[in-house]
Amino acid sequence: MTEEQLSSYHPTLPPTTEEDRFSWLRLLRSRKVGPATFRRLLREHGSAQNALAALPEMACAAGIEGYETCPPGVIEAELKAAKAAKAQLLCLGSADFPNALNDLNDAPPMLWAIGDVSILHRPAVAMVGARNCSSLGARMARGLATDLGKQGHVIVSGLARGIDTAAHMAALDTGTVAVMAGGVDVIYPAENTDLAHKIAESGLRVSEQPMGVTPQARHFPRRNRIISGLAQAVVVVEAAAKSGSLITARDALDQGREVLSVPGHPFDARAAGCNLLIRDGATLVRSAEDVIEALPQRDLITATRPQRTPTITKPTPPAALHKAILTRLGPSPIAEDQLIRDIAASAGEIGPALVDLELEGRIQRQPGGLLSLST
Amino acid sequence: MTEEQLSSYHPTLPPTTEEDRFSWLRLLRSRKVGPATFRRLLREHGSAQNALAALPEMACAAGIEGYETCPPGVIEAELKAAKAAKAQLLCLGSADFPNALNDLNDAPPMLWAIGDVSILHRPAVAMVGARNCSSLGARMARGLATDLGKQGHVIVSGLARGIDTAAHMAALDTGTVAVMAGGVDVIYPAENTDLAHKIAESGLRVSEQPMGVTPQARHFPRRNRIISGLAQAVVVVEAAAKSGSLITARDALDQGREVLSVPGHPFDARAAGCNLLIRDGATLVRSAEDVIEALPQRDLITATRPQRTPTITKPTPPAALHKAILTRLGPSPIAEDQLIRDIAASAGEIGPALVDLELEGRIQRQPGGLLSLST
Repeated sequence: MTEEQLSSYHPTLPPTTEEDRFSWLRLLRSRKVGPATFRRLLREHGSAQNALAALPEMACAAGIEGYETCPPGVIEAELKAAKAAKAQLLCLGSADFPNALNDLNDAPPMLWAIGDVSILHRPAVAMVGARNCSSLGARMARGLATDLGKQGHVIVSGLARGIDTAAHMAALDTGTVAVMAGGVDVIYPAENTDLAHKIAESGLRVSEQPMGVTPQARHFPRRNRIISGLAQAVVVVEAAAKSGSLITARDALDQGREVLSVPGHPFDARAAGCNLLIRDGATLVRSAEDVIEALPQRDLITATRPQRTPTITKPTPPAALHKAILTRLGPSPIAEDQLIRDIAASAGEIGPALVDLELEGRIQRQPGGLLSLST
Repeated sequence: MTEEQLSSYHPTLPPTTEEDRFSWLRLLRSRKVGPATFRRLLREHGSAQNALAALPEMACAAGIEGYETCPPGVIEAELKAAKAAKAQLLCLGSADFPNALNDLNDAPPMLWAIGDVSILHRPAVAMVGARNCSSLGARMARGLATDLGKQGHVIVSGLARGIDTAAHMAALDTGTVAVMAGGVDVIYPAENTDLAHKIAESGLRVSEQPMGVTPQARHFPRRNRIISGLAQAVVVVEAAAKSGSLITARDALDQGREVLSVPGHPFDARAAGCNLLIRDGATLVRSAEDVIEALPQRDLITATRPQRTPTITKPTPPAALHKAILTRLGPSPIAEDQLIRDIAASAGEIGPALVDLELEGRIQRQPGGLLSLST
């Protein structure tokens, strides 16, 4: 059997031994080997070991003087750091590698992951937006992430300040994935250290960068393609006209992902990017329902992802009631009686739900028994 | 030349003498004669005088006891009131009648106008929105109206509180048309009396209602079709989920007008209608440039408005046709086109049958050319 025939059968054979994994990592960490080159080399040479052996000669033929592959010591150090951080290596083609990334031309051949890797097999929605978001934007992100989480969707974001933070926090209980720009063990920004630890405990942090790498500006756009790649849809919550979120949105379109956007008033500069996306064809989002409506049909997804067994949390009755209350309320106060009639629930049911929502700071009581959404 | 041939050449010959105008007004003010019926009667009988003469017999044949056309004294009073208010009568088919309304199935056959009627021949954009708008909404309306005005667009609106008022005021210097729900001489709301006078001085007020009529709830949706009808595009600036502005927007779509909408944050109830429209396909508006970009090309408009030559054949509608129509119709309005397709009869057969049924009070015409059973 020739090499070409082999590659046509197994475009990317995952590594099966420790030695294989070592070689994969070494090949990927070698100079001038990006995701696409990595896959091409693997296809052309049948294995990472063969590719590593061939690389110096190929570089020489291409006019690169004194090319050397990544020294084994570097990989040993990376594996040691990963062990210390309890990070797992997910390799393209392995059962634990996120299927969603297989669609991408430039899928990372390997990801470091800290946390529950099974979460990568559940349906996911990415949420991105401004670091310097408004309180309204943060509230919107929280609301969407909470509601999408309750309906079984993992929330993928980038652990940045603002919208990312709000989305991750709201989804801690239902499942969230933070895609890191630097090493999976390098938490940035520092203020999110606690959040990052919580995500590793109940959700997952992933990165394609080597362990210990401090994030650089150039890492962010590359990271963004993984955020959108892991999700069925990308929701842009608040974004100025020229922002990284718009780059993520365009990546998402290139990847065939749904792009959705929360509108804002044209006088609000933080909505400019979102409104632009909507003008360009993104779906306008008012609520989690709008997002779910825009997602590709679940049956279709499970059909194309056979080994997945998503564990969808059923919305508990109190959650449904909370949702019904929040849907009915707006910034203008309405009477509690009216709310009870609108929702067609008993005062005995609604009372405790209102207390919960008030404690969460999501609704406000006004003089005269009136209720409104918190502003 | 037979009447049928005549009608195919001149679907709506405008009145040329004072006597003609008197008869037109008298026919239109006669009971059970709406805009569509008016035009059918005119087509079928060649002149308003003939139609007036035939009406009582038609009504009798349709089983209406003691039908009488509008008494001449009523028209004399209306003309006197119009003279006092310096109102002009614009008649369908006349040079001074707004061309834009010719597209409408239910164009008003006549409009009273106070002010500069030449303004009706300039390109126009309608602006509608909430009466209880936010200051942000009013500011947006002012900004759009000012900028559109500067670029030569007349602003059409409804003289209501809120968005309408903001739009008219900003466009006083560049040209604005107020379409009144009641008589053109009856200013509503009273707080806009000064604005209404200014509009008559530098712009135009119009109404299809008789002089002196106090606006009723039922007048507003009918009025709205004229607002959108006069414009190339309708911009909804701020509108709640269930608001009259959305009715105007749907009318506008039926009329083939561009519908545009200013987005807002989903937490802002006053943006709910606007966001809904955008989800449904309305163009998102951030600025006057967005509106202008969405307008149909000027040349295209004149090119796509040929001389109207409807061909309605002489009626002999059997009772079976009446029955078929009544069976098909229900309390929910359906389009006349749909009815014609359902019954598989020609427009020429169905038209007169509809007139009969309308005169009998068994069916009702709704804005947008829709038909329903009388309730």
